[in-house]
Amino acid sequence: MKKVLLSFLLLQSTAIFSQSKLNEQVRNYRKANEYALLNEFKGLLSIPNVVYDTVGIQKTASFIVKMMEDRGIKTTLLDAKTKGVPPAIYGEVLVPNATKTVIFYAHYDGQPVNPNQWAEGIAPFKSVFLDASLEKGGKIIPDPQPTDTINPEWRIYGRSASDDKAGVFSILSAYQVLNKLEIKPTVNLKFFFEGEEEAGSTHLSEILEKHKDKLKSDLWIICDGPVHQSGKKQIVFGVRGDIGMEIKVFASKRPLHSGHYGNWAPNPANLLVKLLASMKDDNGKVLIKGFYDDVVPFTDLEKKALAKVPAVDDQMKQELGFVRPEGGGKTLAELINLPSLNINGISSANVGKMVANVIPTSATAALDLRLVLGNDAQRQAQKVIDHIKSQGYYVTQNESITDEERLKYPLIARVILGKGYNAQRTKMDLPIAQNVIKAVQTTVSDEVVLMPSLGGSLPLFLFEKYLGTPTITVPIANHDNNQHAENENIRIQNIWNGIETYVALMRL
Amino acid sequence: MKKVLLSFLLLQSTAIFSQSKLNEQVRNYRKANEYALLNEFKGLLSIPNVVYDTVGIQKTASFIVKMMEDRGIKTTLLDAKTKGVPPAIYGEVLVPNATKTVIFYAHYDGQPVNPNQWAEGIAPFKSVFLDASLEKGGKIIPDPQPTDTINPEWRIYGRSASDDKAGVFSILSAYQVLNKLEIKPTVNLKFFFEGEEEAGSTHLSEILEKHKDKLKSDLWIICDGPVHQSGKKQIVFGVRGDIGMEIKVFASKRPLHSGHYGNWAPNPANLLVKLLASMKDDNGKVLIKGFYDDVVPFTDLEKKALAKVPAVDDQMKQELGFVRPEGGGKTLAELINLPSLNINGISSANVGKMVANVIPTSATAALDLRLVLGNDAQRQAQKVIDHIKSQGYYVTQNESITDEERLKYPLIARVILGKGYNAQRTKMDLPIAQNVIKAVQTTVSDEVVLMPSLGGSLPLFLFEKYLGTPTITVPIANHDNNQHAENENIRIQNIWNGIETYVALMRL
Repeated sequence: MKKVLLSFLLLQSTAIFSQSKLNEQVRNYRKANEYALLNEFKGLLSIPNVVYDTVGIQKTASFIVKMMEDRGIKTTLLDAKTKGVPPAIYGEVLVPNATKTVIFYAHYDGQPVNPNQWAEGIAPFKSVFLDASLEKGGKIIPDPQPTDTINPEWRIYGRSASDDKAGVFSILSAYQVLNKLEIKPTVNLKFFFEGEEEAGSTHLSEILEKHKDKLKSDLWIICDGPVHQSGKKQIVFGVRGDIGMEIKVFASKRPLHSGHYGNWAPNPANLLVKLLASMKDDNGKVLIKGFYDDVVPFTDLEKKALAKVPAVDDQMKQELGFVRPEGGGKTLAELINLPSLNINGISSANVGKMVANVIPTSATAALDLRLVLGNDAQRQAQKVIDHIKSQGYYVTQNESITDEERLKYPLIARVILGKGYNAQRTKMDLPIAQNVIKAVQTTVSDEVVLMPSLGGSLPLFLFEKYLGTPTITVPIANHDNNQHAENENIRIQNIWNGIETYVALMRL
Repeated sequence: MKKVLLSFLLLQSTAIFSQSKLNEQVRNYRKANEYALLNEFKGLLSIPNVVYDTVGIQKTASFIVKMMEDRGIKTTLLDAKTKGVPPAIYGEVLVPNATKTVIFYAHYDGQPVNPNQWAEGIAPFKSVFLDASLEKGGKIIPDPQPTDTINPEWRIYGRSASDDKAGVFSILSAYQVLNKLEIKPTVNLKFFFEGEEEAGSTHLSEILEKHKDKLKSDLWIICDGPVHQSGKKQIVFGVRGDIGMEIKVFASKRPLHSGHYGNWAPNPANLLVKLLASMKDDNGKVLIKGFYDDVVPFTDLEKKALAKVPAVDDQMKQELGFVRPEGGGKTLAELINLPSLNINGISSANVGKMVANVIPTSATAALDLRLVLGNDAQRQAQKVIDHIKSQGYYVTQNESITDEERLKYPLIARVILGKGYNAQRTKMDLPIAQNVIKAVQTTVSDEVVLMPSLGGSLPLFLFEKYLGTPTITVPIANHDNNQHAENENIRIQNIWNGIETYVALMRL
């Protein structure tokens, strides 16, 4: 027994020694190659990748294929059954004697952009460097030159800088570092970069189903989302589901002069604000019937992990500049584990310079519903539709309202649902999950945050449903990255940390 | 006595005969010159005239000056004390032996345009012909050629087609017709075309004060707004006042991912809908404290006139495509004689193709308050501000919110007020008012509608305040002209009627 224990301890210490040596090698390699690394990342960021921009999506995919081929990764595009869908980019590296296979996932498409909303000098596809975040007074600086010292607190601004080209880049750079250092991965590596995530991964199921033989593995590791707001690395075992919804309320057929008809003709903006106001109370609690039903409670292990998540509420309120959160006293960590209803946007006629004294013809709100384990996307959306009906509305899905409908129903709303998907949660006590925790923990001295579920959404239930494979998310972006919005950015240190994390994950 | 009476009757019948002969002459002249008339109008419509577009405003003014000089009208530009303000275009025609002077007012600037909101093929400054209104299925037709028969039901689409280049054009064409027919006006004519009406006539008072000697007259006749919805000509003795207001509600300093922060971070769109929803009840009654105070009641004569106004509510509901008006059963005519609060526009982040899963940083609403006699613009706006405060808001006028303010106040709104102006009403029993009624009545067999006040607004109180002169509005546009909105248009018959009306008004 003693001998066995000793050799075990020796092995352990060798492992620890070699792991810390590896970390040092990785860091030294990166330090020697920072300019070249960022230069390649800049190239990737300069290609428009809005999910609905077919040409941009194709160009982005080609750039990534070239990055993979440069690294000696055998690459193919995985198509869906439906024609014309952005392909997933697939690559694999088989390792002799490896017994496990891990697929590394990121997505290469980005959220829509409205360039007018971005700060002056910052364009979505220009990859501009700033010496700090805009919110902390950051100023635009010239792109670093080969001999410049690069401050890791600098940020790069651009659509998908964090969500999720940083994911693609960090995964491929981690593999590049191993390659250059001639260190073998300990598991077979597969790479899967999706091109339709920001449109709700509408055809991901088709791709997974069609290519399921190629996509056999023991685990998907998802590189998306931010590290914990405390700055600590985090491992996330689940995600919320999500379904988008557009509500459009109709009034007069033509826009009217607000003087000649105001307060007689129905005002659609006024109708919409009444309708939306009826959905939540002043504390942000959703008032829609049954909205909080169906929720599957956490396991004891998950509860324990949650209890250890650092509290960031006060820090975030300070950072974001508000004193009264929604939730009537519940914490951020509690609230992101509940179903939510959020207004993403609202529009009727114009404001600002374009304002005119009119009664608009319609008013539109975009909502998203976040779902937790137990919620079903369509069922949850139906609760909102039922609520709209309960407020006296006739609800249709049609683009145009007929004269008959207009003269029959006092209140008319068009509701269009996104496809949506459900939440997913991987059990923390799976052996491979424990290996992931150990691997990430080797790269930092702070205790890694273990999150039962992220507030954000990814269609991770699909991997379980079509492949039977668990997923674990290991994010790398700074939490203040403006993901999905204008002025998206990534802090350079987060890219460096991300590379180190993914090197470790390739040696599970 | 008998002799006197007989000669009076003879004079009267001569007057009636000559008036009906004049109407026939005017109509014949117009019929022979329809192409040339519309061609000049098209030229006027093709010049951008958005009130904030300095270059467009100057070009529009130059075009009108040329139109006036072509008609032999002595023309000058009237400037304000403030530099760089759009000038008023002034002209005069003195008539030997005339004892009265009438100033004809229209404005040559237009409301802002968002070309994306205009129907396909119709641009704000292209003057496109349609064979009927868009709402009635009208299709774009080629511009008429010199030998074409012009259907008076056709419409011309373009910004200011009705509001108010049609006014400028009809006044100047009426004078042109008199000229060509070699018929003398019976009053001295002065012309005053304002260039800043759609920005709230901010500097009109300066122009009136600076040039008050030139602007001496017995009456201002205002050519703006629509004829009655029944299609009948109307004479309007007053207008509502108006004050615009922008409310911007602030939340986080940076846009947030709706999954990671939704239903914890405050959502500004959610705050704004709650705030706006608190302002009116489900019947559209304004709930703001004291909102309906201060109203000066109508005189008996005004009440009698109001009672004779044709009821158009059912027709308008049918035409506009809705069944439930605001007002809890009050008629349109009653409601436009009350103060009103209207949402002109609302905006937060994006909807439609541009939607992203974010919590926006702010949400904005544009409101306008219409005022009746007795209301004061600033006092009425203050009631709204007080209401916002009563909902727990800290109200500021500053463009940017300091970190200190953000961390002190749970609810923050920026409120910016337009300058605004008060309502005005001219007494119907003034002798010159009675002359106007008689003149317009000679041009039609239907009884002319006499409106104590229009729902819309013009800064008519200024003429009384700075010049002591009464004003009467004689509108010409079709009621379904989409004034202030996209797809503004004028029905050609309304231009023809307008010319006849204004010929009569030049022979009061």
